[in-house]
Amino acid sequence: MASAILKRVSASAMSSLVESIRIGASSRNFAAVAVGTDIVSAAPDVSLQKARSWDEGVSSKFSTTPLKDIFKVCSSILRGAYTGVCSQQHVPSYNNKIDEFKAKGIDSVICVSVNDPYTLNGWAEKLQAKDAIQFFGDFDGKFHKSLELDKDLSVALLGPRSERWSAYVVDGKVKALNVEEAPSDFKVTGADVILNQI
Amino acid sequence: MASAILKRVSASAMSSLVESIRIGASSRNFAAVAVGTDIVSAAPDVSLQKARSWDEGVSSKFSTTPLKDIFKVCSSILRGAYTGVCSQQHVPSYNNKIDEFKAKGIDSVICVSVNDPYTLNGWAEKLQAKDAIQFFGDFDGKFHKSLELDKDLSVALLGPRSERWSAYVVDGKVKALNVEEAPSDFKVTGADVILNQI
Repeated sequence: MASAILKRVSASAMSSLVESIRIGASSRNFAAVAVGTDIVSAAPDVSLQKARSWDEGVSSKFSTTPLKDIFKVCSSILRGAYTGVCSQQHVPSYNNKIDEFKAKGIDSVICVSVNDPYTLNGWAEKLQAKDAIQFFGDFDGKFHKSLELDKDLSVALLGPRSERWSAYVVDGKVKALNVEEAPSDFKVTGADVILNQI
Repeated sequence: MASAILKRVSASAMSSLVESIRIGASSRNFAAVAVGTDIVSAAPDVSLQKARSWDEGVSSKFSTTPLKDIFKVCSSILRGAYTGVCSQQHVPSYNNKIDEFKAKGIDSVICVSVNDPYTLNGWAEKLQAKDAIQFFGDFDGKFHKSLELDKDLSVALLGPRSERWSAYVVDGKVKALNVEEAPSDFKVTGADVILNQI
């Protein structure tokens, strides 16, 4: 199922802002990440930025976290998201099911977003999701670019962001991958789908 | 005083993260904006994005606001800012003095930030500043680039942002301009300084 999604092509390109409810429908295949990919090898030298307050950022001397430290021996659910559907559906769908992920032996549920870590922290706090989910910023988009999951969403006044996607990762290896046809869709990246793939 | 600030050079370049408390100290002069500059002419074809919720963004078909509609006949205080000092000092300093600006005949206090308009909206709501201040996003940084007030703050995990600055603008013309030596400084761009320049 994941590979079917990977091989998909967009049914229709977005032709006007009137159709913007499906923002960023894509006609691209994803070459850099697939089932079997080692996330750490696919994005060498990439670090993420743990969500935190500005003051914590200053105290930490703006430290970052290498991917290998995030995906060491563990099973993780990794999700990429952006403003909008994300706040109302995507993050809550995982936040509400955290006990089911734990019951299946998942060590960590991780949300990576093309945002600075301070914005991401404020957003995570507003969603009351920090206890269940680890939030990491990808402020320069390097992680998503490495995986070819980056997406220009300037049409929605967002600039360079990411596809909406989810992955089940064990010891750094991708075991399942789901990518929405358009980042404004929420069909294959919710918690229920990936719970069935574990 | 404003022109003295425009001509300033940085006392020291930032040499390590240990010195990051003064993030982004600059050695650049500002050629594109000065006292007397017409903001609309200096940034032709640039629009800003009124801060709003994601749902309002979708409803508005992601509309933007041309500079000429923001700076038509009126006197405005314009401020550029970013996360950090901004939340604790910069925005509150204007929010708390709004009555003094009104008493001096200022029509609008405007905050422009290199953020998407939804993030900016969430931040403005958290600061309880939306009644006093108009917030506009500059998500792609075009406004700040046109004025040569853009600034790479990747060292603070923020990416392309802006200088910290304030301006007193009448009918689009800059009457006073203040730019901090480093965006983490808060010496010349607070409400008290510009109140004395009106």
